[in-house]
Amino acid sequence: MKPKNILYAQSGGVTAVINASAAGVIETARAAGHKVGKVYAARNGILGVLHEDLIDTSFESKIAIQSLRYTPGGAFGSCRYKLKDIETHAAEYERLMAVFKAHEIDVFMYNGGGDSADTAYKISQLGKKMGYPLQCIGIPKTIDNDLPITDTCPGFGSVAKYVATSIREASYDIASMCSSSTKVFIMEVMGRHAGWIAAAAGLARAHEKDGPHIILFPERPFNEATFLNKVADCVKKYGFCSMVVSEGVRNADGKFLSESGLTDAFGHAQLGGVAPTIAALIKDKLGFKYHWAVLDYLQRSARHLASGTDAEQAYAVGKAALEYALEGKNAVMPVIVRESNIPYMWGIKEANLADMANVEKKMPADYISQDGFSITQACRDYLEPLIQGEDYPPYVNGLPDYRHLRNEPVVKKLKAF
Amino acid sequence: MKPKNILYAQSGGVTAVINASAAGVIETARAAGHKVGKVYAARNGILGVLHEDLIDTSFESKIAIQSLRYTPGGAFGSCRYKLKDIETHAAEYERLMAVFKAHEIDVFMYNGGGDSADTAYKISQLGKKMGYPLQCIGIPKTIDNDLPITDTCPGFGSVAKYVATSIREASYDIASMCSSSTKVFIMEVMGRHAGWIAAAAGLARAHEKDGPHIILFPERPFNEATFLNKVADCVKKYGFCSMVVSEGVRNADGKFLSESGLTDAFGHAQLGGVAPTIAALIKDKLGFKYHWAVLDYLQRSARHLASGTDAEQAYAVGKAALEYALEGKNAVMPVIVRESNIPYMWGIKEANLADMANVEKKMPADYISQDGFSITQACRDYLEPLIQGEDYPPYVNGLPDYRHLRNEPVVKKLKAF
Repeated sequence: MKPKNILYAQSGGVTAVINASAAGVIETARAAGHKVGKVYAARNGILGVLHEDLIDTSFESKIAIQSLRYTPGGAFGSCRYKLKDIETHAAEYERLMAVFKAHEIDVFMYNGGGDSADTAYKISQLGKKMGYPLQCIGIPKTIDNDLPITDTCPGFGSVAKYVATSIREASYDIASMCSSSTKVFIMEVMGRHAGWIAAAAGLARAHEKDGPHIILFPERPFNEATFLNKVADCVKKYGFCSMVVSEGVRNADGKFLSESGLTDAFGHAQLGGVAPTIAALIKDKLGFKYHWAVLDYLQRSARHLASGTDAEQAYAVGKAALEYALEGKNAVMPVIVRESNIPYMWGIKEANLADMANVEKKMPADYISQDGFSITQACRDYLEPLIQGEDYPPYVNGLPDYRHLRNEPVVKKLKAF
Repeated sequence: MKPKNILYAQSGGVTAVINASAAGVIETARAAGHKVGKVYAARNGILGVLHEDLIDTSFESKIAIQSLRYTPGGAFGSCRYKLKDIETHAAEYERLMAVFKAHEIDVFMYNGGGDSADTAYKISQLGKKMGYPLQCIGIPKTIDNDLPITDTCPGFGSVAKYVATSIREASYDIASMCSSSTKVFIMEVMGRHAGWIAAAAGLARAHEKDGPHIILFPERPFNEATFLNKVADCVKKYGFCSMVVSEGVRNADGKFLSESGLTDAFGHAQLGGVAPTIAALIKDKLGFKYHWAVLDYLQRSARHLASGTDAEQAYAVGKAALEYALEGKNAVMPVIVRESNIPYMWGIKEANLADMANVEKKMPADYISQDGFSITQACRDYLEPLIQGEDYPPYVNGLPDYRHLRNEPVVKKLKAF
């Protein structure tokens, strides 16, 4: 059998463990001997394919590839570029096929979220149409945890562990200060459309008095009066109120809270940060001293606190993708199956890309408590296994020893796109 | 010799390792056998003394005291209450002495920063005046790293490690995204008066291309034009610009940048966050897509990433304070001495509280680069030893196993204050 040439690309927002999936692909390919030819990566995701900007991973040492296992970000670069519709923009897809052909790519692997699954599915159908035998395999990744079929999405478990740890720590802090100083702490987390990450922060609450006392989910419209009552109630009961706010929280009109009326000196509305908006509201209506934090990129790049389970699963889906490639599969994605909850056991199964594309997994309604401010036991049961295990990176000189790859370019064979 | 009764109190903003100092005090006291009588703690710092709100630590199990070694926040509560001047407000000091007498306290230990050293010094002089033989011993703590004489302040090294790790991770993230998305990342850190914490983030920059490319220090007035040039230059050179901004950055008029013109829907000026202000400026003047994070409490409570050196030193100053107490000392504070840089060696020496009070250690001018945007080798040489070593807390169910104490109250003997 002719050795297969592989092209791997990373897509969308990166995570603490997407490189672990890359390591899973590359190490499995290296171990497969003569069955695999070249293993290329596209620089900056699908843009690298369009611009024939490819990287030859064979120049990377064994140690460099091992370091992918514990280095956050996207080692080959990612992108937010979304391919246009295949019917109206055939040229883009023809270009992709031209690049695949020019470099004799047998398998394209696309490591990303929902949009990427859609793109990967479209590409998986091109080979037959265009008479070039291309396999396309998706690899799941998204901190949003919104892919269907799979039990969870690699990247999410590590964010979950980080946000829960962070709010637990900050709650210990404010609990010490509240008698004479700060009464309210607000931590803003990602999740424009779904409250998965905000929910995960709820795992920090081991006892009733512990934070977070309030979680604001994008699934529940913000009601100012109910919210302020709840805050005042927490301060009365516990001496302080520690809360987690999803960036996606909206008011009853469906408008993002972070956009409702906040302006800077130039009249810009887009400053963002729902945390400071909520803080100002509390100060104005209740008069409490507050502190707030916005985690932003830190939550999805905090490899120093990765979930061991998540890192392992990220590696496993990369490994499985390469195995599917060698088995000649097309239009599939390895996904995670929960085999049991206690003890947590999981495996990998094959899903059809057609079923993964354009379906967003919502958070079940029974994961949010009746009053809308906390998570239920069902939610805990789902989330808890995902943050198990610590998988620390090595440290040099007191800091995580993350590594850059050489990323040697492959000589171009085509004209510029 | 009559066993000594100890009263320990925590003061000011708490840290990831202030409880390690408490553990140093209590474990050393327990090991001292008959030399030590009661070990009390004041609830919520000096307020607990004023209100005779004391805690008997003998009810805490050995395991509970061990857990202080790795639990962030202030286990007995802290406060931001500053004692009034001793000449004009004698009643407060008389009340303190009344509480000390009522509970036969021989040694008062005050664990805090600069203000607390001043308070501790004043109290140390009361015994002689008021004819009650009280010893007062200070224990250093502050993430601001601004106490004189001591080489560093327990609490700072852990913040330093956390901010440097965080900006390294976020820089790996934005480096992956910058080709088609975010170009600028801004991380805001604490440090109202001095740039120690911002400087520490500079340790993350191992190679020129690595972030942070820009640090904004409170020591250097903000110049909009120079800054914007530098940002544009970084984006051109590296493809992105990763920066760290101290909350204390001011413009040429000495006004905090975070206060310059930012208003919310109600016209409040105090929303704060210099990061969003800088972000809006960059968007307005350079048009770059940005992300920003504000660490706030998370940086000083991130016990999950404590510096091993810092945790060890925090414990050591607590232990030394108890030893000084047993030696009958008064008006002293154990501080940290750097004995050598490579390898880093340190010890504990005795400083006079009189010399610690009301002196703020500034960052040396030669720690900031000529252009004002990064740290020098001298600064690195000073900072690097302080973040060495990882001292991970134990984990249960995927989260750090931080513990609350029982905090059993001591029966009051006096009327309310």
